Amino acid sequence: MNIQTPVRPPELRAEAGARRMAHSALTAQGVTPSLPEFLRMVEKTREHLFTTAEPVPLSDLQGWRHTPDGMALAHHSGGFFRVVGLSVDMPDGPVPRWSQPIIDQPETGILGILVKEFGGVPHLLMQLKPEPGNRNGLQLSPTVQATRSNYTGVHRGRGVPYLEYFLDPPRVLADVRQSEQGAWFLRKRNRNMVVETGGDVEVREGFHWLTLGQVNALLAVDDTVNMDSRTVLSCLPLTRTGAVGGDAFGAALDRSLGPDADALHPTTDILSWITGARAAARMATAPAALRDLPGWHRVDGRISHEEELFFDVIGVRVEASGREVDHWTQPMIAARGTGLVALLVADFGGVLHVLLNLRAEPGLIDGPELGPTVQYTSDTYARLPAAARPALLDRVLDAPPESIRFDAVQSDEGGRFYHTVNRHLVIETEPLPEPPGHRWVTLRQTQDLLRHSNYLNVQARSALACLRGLLGRSGG
Amino acid sequence: MNIQTPVRPPELRAEAGARRMAHSALTAQGVTPSLPEFLRMVEKTREHLFTTAEPVPLSDLQGWRHTPDGMALAHHSGGFFRVVGLSVDMPDGPVPRWSQPIIDQPETGILGILVKEFGGVPHLLMQLKPEPGNRNGLQLSPTVQATRSNYTGVHRGRGVPYLEYFLDPPRVLADVRQSEQGAWFLRKRNRNMVVETGGDVEVREGFHWLTLGQVNALLAVDDTVNMDSRTVLSCLPLTRTGAVGGDAFGAALDRSLGPDADALHPTTDILSWITGARAAARMATAPAALRDLPGWHRVDGRISHEEELFFDVIGVRVEASGREVDHWTQPMIAARGTGLVALLVADFGGVLHVLLNLRAEPGLIDGPELGPTVQYTSDTYARLPAAARPALLDRVLDAPPESIRFDAVQSDEGGRFYHTVNRHLVIETEPLPEPPGHRWVTLRQTQDLLRHSNYLNVQARSALACLRGLLGRSGG
Repeated sequence: MNIQTPVRPPELRAEAGARRMAHSALTAQGVTPSLPEFLRMVEKTREHLFTTAEPVPLSDLQGWRHTPDGMALAHHSGGFFRVVGLSVDMPDGPVPRWSQPIIDQPETGILGILVKEFGGVPHLLMQLKPEPGNRNGLQLSPTVQATRSNYTGVHRGRGVPYLEYFLDPPRVLADVRQSEQGAWFLRKRNRNMVVETGGDVEVREGFHWLTLGQVNALLAVDDTVNMDSRTVLSCLPLTRTGAVGGDAFGAALDRSLGPDADALHPTTDILSWITGARAAARMATAPAALRDLPGWHRVDGRISHEEELFFDVIGVRVEASGREVDHWTQPMIAARGTGLVALLVADFGGVLHVLLNLRAEPGLIDGPELGPTVQYTSDTYARLPAAARPALLDRVLDAPPESIRFDAVQSDEGGRFYHTVNRHLVIETEPLPEPPGHRWVTLRQTQDLLRHSNYLNVQARSALACLRGLLGRSGG
Repeated sequence: MNIQTPVRPPELRAEAGARRMAHSALTAQGVTPSLPEFLRMVEKTREHLFTTAEPVPLSDLQGWRHTPDGMALAHHSGGFFRVVGLSVDMPDGPVPRWSQPIIDQPETGILGILVKEFGGVPHLLMQLKPEPGNRNGLQLSPTVQATRSNYTGVHRGRGVPYLEYFLDPPRVLADVRQSEQGAWFLRKRNRNMVVETGGDVEVREGFHWLTLGQVNALLAVDDTVNMDSRTVLSCLPLTRTGAVGGDAFGAALDRSLGPDADALHPTTDILSWITGARAAARMATAPAALRDLPGWHRVDGRISHEEELFFDVIGVRVEASGREVDHWTQPMIAARGTGLVALLVADFGGVLHVLLNLRAEPGLIDGPELGPTVQYTSDTYARLPAAARPALLDRVLDAPPESIRFDAVQSDEGGRFYHTVNRHLVIETEPLPEPPGHRWVTLRQTQDLLRHSNYLNVQARSALACLRGLLGRSGG
């Protein structure tokens, strides 16, 4: 580094990167065949690259045992992850106290997408990757999904293709630790990275260069772009292009990404609102014995809630096909019912705003984070107190079909979650008053927050990836 | 709120607020008498508003006892704070393992400065407040220093003047939770707030409206602006004025505050560097019994390190004079020796950059934070491994007098720390290569980071307040 040469103003430089990615979002055809051809190829790949995951009793898992103190279900090697018990006190919440199993995997993994320009258009290197919890096996994943043990110690990066780009990034577009599901992971974060290279990149089997526009189009197909991809995509800077034709919605979406977008609330006020809520939040969590967790029992070889609510901890036997044949057993979380992740969006003075809801979740590290407008599972909420019902649920459930701008089912991460999916909705509405705990924000404001940890939860990020994916696609 | 009317772009609005505060920084005379008169008044106030704090054995403290399990020194009411033992594992640090006492006070307090315009110039409402740990009693403190118990429950805000402005802020200029000393406080943060009002404000005894320029001038006087004020001041947005005459240093300082300031590193790269270091950081802390803390013993009625290093936990008997006469006893931390908090600054292409050092400290919540270039106590470091010696210590200690732009002794918070002070230095240097763990950043970059928690430690914030205080003061 020549330390005597400052670069141009950092914000202008970031804006230039965001503009190039927006250009990629508006490019429907890149170096990879057209989308229909790509999808046919995905179907073909499914035939030889897949995993099967068969539920088995937890007692049949090889090497997984309750720890002698009954606190956790753990692998005898001490590796992978543990399922532990947690007792939660949230005196101001609709349910002031409960116990639950939760996944304990304190390390920070890397979720990284490699970017390279072809013909002046940035492309994303995406991997077709089977994961055992996926209903349909194969989904589009980031270039790299690496656990910490993949990239530290003597094996530093060997065995994980392309990991070297993320350990020593040539050019960083995004790099931020973001939370995983706060209801199911205890204080877990992954490092979400987007890195660009100008050098030659060998394309390995199962990897494909796609434009952001192509990835965005795939978001509209059920169960196709995996959760790790969606959270990384949500952290990718975009900006207003002005080049979006079509309807008012598309133009308002584009404007919402611009640094000059008018906003209902100054960002300082949004930050102050979050700061105040966090300073006032009263949530205490403590380890609890998994073996004797109040409200939970072990039946049929799984750990279930006594009222059949929330989720089960199940065992699965996995067989993976592909170039290497492999098989193993592991615990997984299986949610009950299909979840709902919905964003209400509205046009305020020509700028699209999205309504976010500040939510406390027991696994989050630093207090409440912004979730989508509605984050909900019908089986569960039906039996919770009325106060737990999301404020705008009816508005979402009764949305007129023509107001629905996005509607696709998206999978939770297939390495830990079994057939666990959320219907993702983006619904256009007229400007509404903000219920308690809700704020209308611009996409630029979410993007500024997403440069930092602990602001937007994984459901909000997943939904924002879908909303941003509409850029340039709603017109005419 | 009329939710249908977006405000102008948030960043422009924030910039307007920053511009007004910069104007205040350049205003040497406000509604309060001139600075010499103000200082004479401070000396006069000392005569009737003071506290005396006399060291006493810990066993003489009234109501403070070791908890039955030996883990903590606590007040029998359960209130105030506790001194606990902590064992620390930092396998990659120069000292890989140690134990220490640390203050446990998990609540988030409010440190708030109220702002109001007089004659078109924003003024800060500062309080002359005696605190027992201060060597000189009285110092300038924020409008409000409130613990959580001051502002929750049935007593909501009664008894703390001006607290209502911070519980329901009319206009927020800054509001962010920031860490306290990571070596002495366990996961403690306070909410740093700057709030503006347009309404009438009754000025109570001991409170004074000062321009930011006046407060900045007082920073140059030893032990005058307290730590709580300095950290809040560091979070106050400023921007380039262009109106600074004088020398190249002053102009480079002004430019460094501008949103268009060229920077050595894109902010995305700074964030990526921090993210990477945090993802890789290996520090584990665990509660340890204070009564049997390895390396520490109880002698002469205090808890001291066996080699007389670091700090002591002492008892003090406090007598406060003023309108109410009051007295109490409490434990305090007394550092050994005067600390050093130094910033190296350099001109890169006409823009002042400051060299910050990413440091792990056991009490920090979310991994390493950026500290000053050098954070050091000679008595302690003299006996630590050479690797613990700050990289640029010699450069600071041997700085030519003409390169020293700021030099004043500043007190740590006088409610918890007894006669604990740090010499604050700002030293101008030529551009230097960055030692490992160090980065040159602009003041605008520090300001952008300071909108969020967990980036800059309290020593860095205190030093930045001093550096920013030179705005408009170095010329001619």
